Amino acid sequence: MDDGVRMSLEEVGREARAILNAYGFSDDHADAIADTMVAAERDGCHHHGLFRLPFYVKAVTVGRAATTAEPTLSELAPGVIAMDAHLAFAPLALQRAHAPLVARARSQGLAALALKNAHNVAALWPEVERLAEAGLVAFAFTSAMPYVAPHGGVKPLFGTNPMAFAWPRRDAPPLVFDMATSACARGEIQIRLRDGRTLEEGWAIDAQGQPTTDPQTALEGAQLPFGGAKGALLSMMVELLAGPLIGDVLSVEAGEADTARSGAPCGGELILAIDPTRMMWEGDLDRQAAHAERLFALMLQQEGVRLPSDRRYQARTRALQEGVVIAPALHETLQALKAAA
Amino acid sequence: MDDGVRMSLEEVGREARAILNAYGFSDDHADAIADTMVAAERDGCHHHGLFRLPFYVKAVTVGRAATTAEPTLSELAPGVIAMDAHLAFAPLALQRAHAPLVARARSQGLAALALKNAHNVAALWPEVERLAEAGLVAFAFTSAMPYVAPHGGVKPLFGTNPMAFAWPRRDAPPLVFDMATSACARGEIQIRLRDGRTLEEGWAIDAQGQPTTDPQTALEGAQLPFGGAKGALLSMMVELLAGPLIGDVLSVEAGEADTARSGAPCGGELILAIDPTRMMWEGDLDRQAAHAERLFALMLQQEGVRLPSDRRYQARTRALQEGVVIAPALHETLQALKAAA
Repeated sequence: MDDGVRMSLEEVGREARAILNAYGFSDDHADAIADTMVAAERDGCHHHGLFRLPFYVKAVTVGRAATTAEPTLSELAPGVIAMDAHLAFAPLALQRAHAPLVARARSQGLAALALKNAHNVAALWPEVERLAEAGLVAFAFTSAMPYVAPHGGVKPLFGTNPMAFAWPRRDAPPLVFDMATSACARGEIQIRLRDGRTLEEGWAIDAQGQPTTDPQTALEGAQLPFGGAKGALLSMMVELLAGPLIGDVLSVEAGEADTARSGAPCGGELILAIDPTRMMWEGDLDRQAAHAERLFALMLQQEGVRLPSDRRYQARTRALQEGVVIAPALHETLQALKAAA
Repeated sequence: MDDGVRMSLEEVGREARAILNAYGFSDDHADAIADTMVAAERDGCHHHGLFRLPFYVKAVTVGRAATTAEPTLSELAPGVIAMDAHLAFAPLALQRAHAPLVARARSQGLAALALKNAHNVAALWPEVERLAEAGLVAFAFTSAMPYVAPHGGVKPLFGTNPMAFAWPRRDAPPLVFDMATSACARGEIQIRLRDGRTLEEGWAIDAQGQPTTDPQTALEGAQLPFGGAKGALLSMMVELLAGPLIGDVLSVEAGEADTARSGAPCGGELILAIDPTRMMWEGDLDRQAAHAERLFALMLQQEGVRLPSDRRYQARTRALQEGVVIAPALHETLQALKAAA
């Protein structure tokens, strides 16, 4: 039985950088993107790891993604910065915007980053986790391709529109969640199609609006928001925050612009960062964090309750010691990408 | 058949103010609270209308709510103000904080209001709607009494923890939603108990964690978040934002503090306000609003899709012309409150 290829995290990073470089990505872009893949593999989020490399490659070979564009920073207000990615991928722009965003959140109490014209196929959690490591409470919102029907409707209009949240902790890594506002990830439907498995109830409808658990029918129909009408409200909210608010596209416009069907959406992302110590008199992160720890302890007292990022941090501990295992099929895909470069 | 008592909105306001005054509320507090009730009755949200008067009265006659305390404003950072309600109800503090919050959002690009030590049994939408009427995008978060079990758990820990969002429109009143992160409102369970009706599946569990549709069993057990694990993440997020972030209580602490079982939670609320025109180069609310209107139009093209606040605004149009009808039982309750004052 083929168990896959064991790699250290350093090797994951080298592999990602080599392939990205081979397809024309500048070192800075390749490094920033590879960092997100290393973080994803390390934390057991393999769908955002090396698995994404073909998406990046397709976005530049077939689509209109830029490989060398330098992101440019603007100050729009004392509490607002914008980073224009100029059609490149988001990770480098986010990396460059991190320090200015932290500085403004600390000086103003809270600050916003409007990331624009960015291709984005990475997860949101790495950036909010990094902000929480700097002691900030952080939110991120991004829209994507039109896959999700509005509540009561039939046709795809919203993206899977994830939102992420991070809370700084003192004696533990940040508490983080990163969730699609759709009932399931797009990739989960594709994986179940590949594996011949059905979908869960409530994930999707067919083109006539009838519930379906068949992956192919779902891909031709629409995904559903999580949690019915309320999840749909959040989906719409993310659409507004990542689009009209910052002057970037709606999911449906991202879909229209991807004429080459690269599958890599280009659009906006909104990040908010709050300095907890500026949110109260004598704000004191130790005290605020200790108060939150009381909530987490009360949650964990109940059997069956877990904190959202715990599984990810457990995977991290293992991966830092043992490296990660890359599935044989993915390993072949990567070799083919290298050969074709 | 008794159809209830028809009242103009002016009469609703007078009735509310008279009862609040009779129980010792200062004119400023009575006016601010009455305004929220008039707005609720006007918009067809009767559970937040005159129906709430007994809650206010009980909170001062049995509980520890203050009736005359003046809220005090502090500037914590260029983008952050705090309003201490000193155990009074939220509406006056929110009214007083509105103009400073708008001013800071415009000058800084975004701003936060930490409302502290406030009793709150009103809805969140009036304040975010008012901010959106001033051209801002607004969020509000508040926690409450411990009614909701964390995902996978059995015991009540989170409040019904609502969040609200508002988006300014040009030729229409703001788009607003205000939703509990629980599957249903607390009041809905109480109403179904009173009316002898069962609950929907997924709303609640019994004290052993088994699903129940019996209202009394649900009240002795726990409510559930909407949308399973994802809704529970939002519930936890609201808990952190309205509590530890701003130095106020967790829902479970609000419950512990309400030793008199008045049912009126005292705690924190976080409001965020963003000036859209500061979120992009040449930010232009007309253009940004028009872009959002494209999304709304695409939503409404689909049969069966509605915008979240439409029903409320339709009720408003009717109520401004015809007044509202107060149920006989509520009318009796109000007369009894007056007699007992």
